[in-house]
Amino acid sequence: MGATIKDIAEKLGVSAGTVSKGLNGGKDISEQLRKSILETAVEMGYESRRPRKESQGCLMVFVENMDYRTSGDFGYDIILGFRKEAYAAGWDVEVLPVTPAFQAENRYETLMMEKGSRGSFFLGFSLEDPWMEQIRTTSVPTILLDNSVPNANVSYIGTDTEEAIDGAVTYLIGLGHEKIGFLDGSTGSMISDLRMAAYLMSLKKHQMPIDPNLAIYSYFTSDAAHYHVPGMLDLGATAILCGNDLIAKGVIASCRNCGMRVPEDVSVIGFDDIPLDARLNPPLTTIRQDRTALGRSAFYTLRSMMEGTSVSRTLLHAELVVRQSAAVAKPRRITRRSVDSDSVLYKNPLLYEQYA
Amino acid sequence: MGATIKDIAEKLGVSAGTVSKGLNGGKDISEQLRKSILETAVEMGYESRRPRKESQGCLMVFVENMDYRTSGDFGYDIILGFRKEAYAAGWDVEVLPVTPAFQAENRYETLMMEKGSRGSFFLGFSLEDPWMEQIRTTSVPTILLDNSVPNANVSYIGTDTEEAIDGAVTYLIGLGHEKIGFLDGSTGSMISDLRMAAYLMSLKKHQMPIDPNLAIYSYFTSDAAHYHVPGMLDLGATAILCGNDLIAKGVIASCRNCGMRVPEDVSVIGFDDIPLDARLNPPLTTIRQDRTALGRSAFYTLRSMMEGTSVSRTLLHAELVVRQSAAVAKPRRITRRSVDSDSVLYKNPLLYEQYA
Repeated sequence: MGATIKDIAEKLGVSAGTVSKGLNGGKDISEQLRKSILETAVEMGYESRRPRKESQGCLMVFVENMDYRTSGDFGYDIILGFRKEAYAAGWDVEVLPVTPAFQAENRYETLMMEKGSRGSFFLGFSLEDPWMEQIRTTSVPTILLDNSVPNANVSYIGTDTEEAIDGAVTYLIGLGHEKIGFLDGSTGSMISDLRMAAYLMSLKKHQMPIDPNLAIYSYFTSDAAHYHVPGMLDLGATAILCGNDLIAKGVIASCRNCGMRVPEDVSVIGFDDIPLDARLNPPLTTIRQDRTALGRSAFYTLRSMMEGTSVSRTLLHAELVVRQSAAVAKPRRITRRSVDSDSVLYKNPLLYEQYA
Repeated sequence: MGATIKDIAEKLGVSAGTVSKGLNGGKDISEQLRKSILETAVEMGYESRRPRKESQGCLMVFVENMDYRTSGDFGYDIILGFRKEAYAAGWDVEVLPVTPAFQAENRYETLMMEKGSRGSFFLGFSLEDPWMEQIRTTSVPTILLDNSVPNANVSYIGTDTEEAIDGAVTYLIGLGHEKIGFLDGSTGSMISDLRMAAYLMSLKKHQMPIDPNLAIYSYFTSDAAHYHVPGMLDLGATAILCGNDLIAKGVIASCRNCGMRVPEDVSVIGFDDIPLDARLNPPLTTIRQDRTALGRSAFYTLRSMMEGTSVSRTLLHAELVVRQSAAVAKPRRITRRSVDSDSVLYKNPLLYEQYA
């Protein structure tokens, strides 16, 4: 953070005057150069001391429960993508972390008015956050990452979970897996429920039997795996799809503790493609969410909302990144028929009834 | 169709020279005036005889099975919304109707290359169309209205069916309805299946019992109602939600044939909000799809795809337009327990198993 005009000029090999023109809407430079100056400025953390001459105004990014300050954090690339597009289109962007306590003391729309901002983007919020009640009825164009509320002024942006999970399941079936478990994040999170539903729907589509003992809610951490993986292996699972990459990391460790090799004995697939994945042993096969594209799309959708086109959901294509943690199935003996019932799909009666 | 520069000038009360400047990217007119000249030109069907000076290129709109030539046709407003935004952003648009025979004789990507076009928008196609096989693997940015294929270069645009149907069901429950039937369009159409699934999911969410005899697939025409409505009324339905407005029109007529008044005895809700609805007797309460917004969003999404952000789905908010065809429930005696099984939900075993 804190790059100067001189830093940007050096990086691009142009004069400080040219950078200044690019940042302030000066006339005699090409559109392409202006764009790369703006992108580099955002990338290097340049903060202008005064609003740009041609600024359309300020857009707010509110963050909670999400790391975003350093390159590699999940939120960092999303915000970078948003800022770059917003900046190139003439908008300024202010990023503000907001705790539940802050939300309880400040009304959302009042804050937006104080900031003189016409639209916002929320990252890392849950439906239990104090502001969500106000967002249900707000008239301010508002974009939520991975959450939806039925309000014509609010829009949900995320990854196409159904397509993503179905792609991973199809890939595992192609490798000969017949017992594919799913170790999900926590119940009560919209994103866990979406991923669980997508897993069940995909098995159903492929006419694979559904074993509720292999469809498990846990937590979005590495530790969760140790409680569940031994049971899943006893039940005969040859592949474990995970609710995110941290869970997958835990599953790999836990398989080793049980004397199993990944991918020779058990295939593991993650979700997100966070930077650690390529450095894991074995490198993790995972469903990639394109984080800068999520940020860019959040801006496109916000612009569309501010111009009067009321989008409900924008879902991006995901990509299965094939590395080395999944391989051809090696069938295993089943030594157990069920596991402790309070750790599984029974926690979501709606999905349980529909699929199990 | 076929307006001249003079026509546009007269309509806007400006000189022909000003209109010409607006259309051809001349300098000394305001952005606002340029925009209204472009919008009026598109609206009045002005076709330039030469490419505009600043044109970014040409985008294709392919149409099949959809009326679009006259104001009031379902496709007309969608294409209008697309053209207006595309034109304002400097793109030319060519609309081309393509029959299955034409598709069988011309490869999609070859045609795009001949036309020098970098992106396209498809209306009214089904997954059985000859080109769909090519679209599954195309590298050309392609937008499909109401259809999805899992390809990173293809994007699905439509209305948020789940939210829309849940809004209508919630509204009917609020009016005291406990037996809400759904008369859908034909099986095998993606949009029928989505609407049926949304209806079942919504009943489930509201903990209402699901009667498979009230969840009926028919056809997207007015005539279909006569075969099904008598049975639905005998089964005690006090409200009938419809797969589109034509079906709703037929349901209203059919209720009258059975000696029932709408909305006093039976509530009826449509889907789409086509122009006839406000003139029906009673005026139809219906779920409104914003057609020009669908067209605008198709352009926004296509632009995003051409710039390298791979969107899978864009779903717009729908709006329940409350007119007079739905009212407080009046319970009715049940005189039958089931209807002819080949006309109902049994036609979709996947949904039947999940919900019934």
